[in-house]
Amino acid sequence: MAAPDTDSGIVYRSDCPSRPILDQIADKWSMMVMAVLDRPRRFNDIKRRLEGVTQRVLTQTLRRLERNGMIRRRVLPTSPVGVEYSLTPLGESLRQPFGHLYGWTVSHSDEIRNCQESYDRQRGAEQS
Amino acid sequence: MAAPDTDSGIVYRSDCPSRPILDQIADKWSMMVMAVLDRPRRFNDIKRRLEGVTQRVLTQTLRRLERNGMIRRRVLPTSPVGVEYSLTPLGESLRQPFGHLYGWTVSHSDEIRNCQESYDRQRGAEQS
Repeated sequence: MAAPDTDSGIVYRSDCPSRPILDQIADKWSMMVMAVLDRPRRFNDIKRRLEGVTQRVLTQTLRRLERNGMIRRRVLPTSPVGVEYSLTPLGESLRQPFGHLYGWTVSHSDEIRNCQESYDRQRGAEQS
Repeated sequence: MAAPDTDSGIVYRSDCPSRPILDQIADKWSMMVMAVLDRPRRFNDIKRRLEGVTQRVLTQTLRRLERNGMIRRRVLPTSPVGVEYSLTPLGESLRQPFGHLYGWTVSHSDEIRNCQESYDRQRGAEQS
């Protein structure tokens, strides 16, 4: 018989192999890069679509996505040399869960902002 | 008539109101905290379930989730005083998209790790 306070809810073990993966993919810029890769695109095209991203952050994000098998990097035989990025099948399969999350975010943005404002007002009132 | 190089793919404007929200919620610890909140839980219970999380990171994560309206914080009339956290309806509605993403991560961990190893081997070979 289980002890009465035993509770079978989720425990995330620190050696769970999915944890570092989650760390790698749960990231705003990764999600946005993958969303704009609806077809192969060049670096500058991606950069232009992600207004405000710096060269450095975009380069790091693309490298991480490539290392994780989500995107493919292809050097184009152009002059000057161009580089094109596209989703791999693995990356394609991640677009749907990312899409769900992004859709949720868009449709709940106002509600979340209202919560933030009310939280900040309350904190401000407590502190003054 | 549109210019031939006009391409109607996604552009993320830097003033898009969902962008800072995505930044707030696309975060490993937020996802894990929300996953363990299948019922109201106390701070120490949450901490124990997220092996390896520090007191500081968990406190910050809980505060951010509360500010974003995802969780509710309730001080319990116990001695010593306990604090319990539970999902709000808004938080509940985020569990499903998070669940999708987490499920994807678990089922593709091995594949991603293989990609990482192959990427690192190739880089190592190039550099030696």
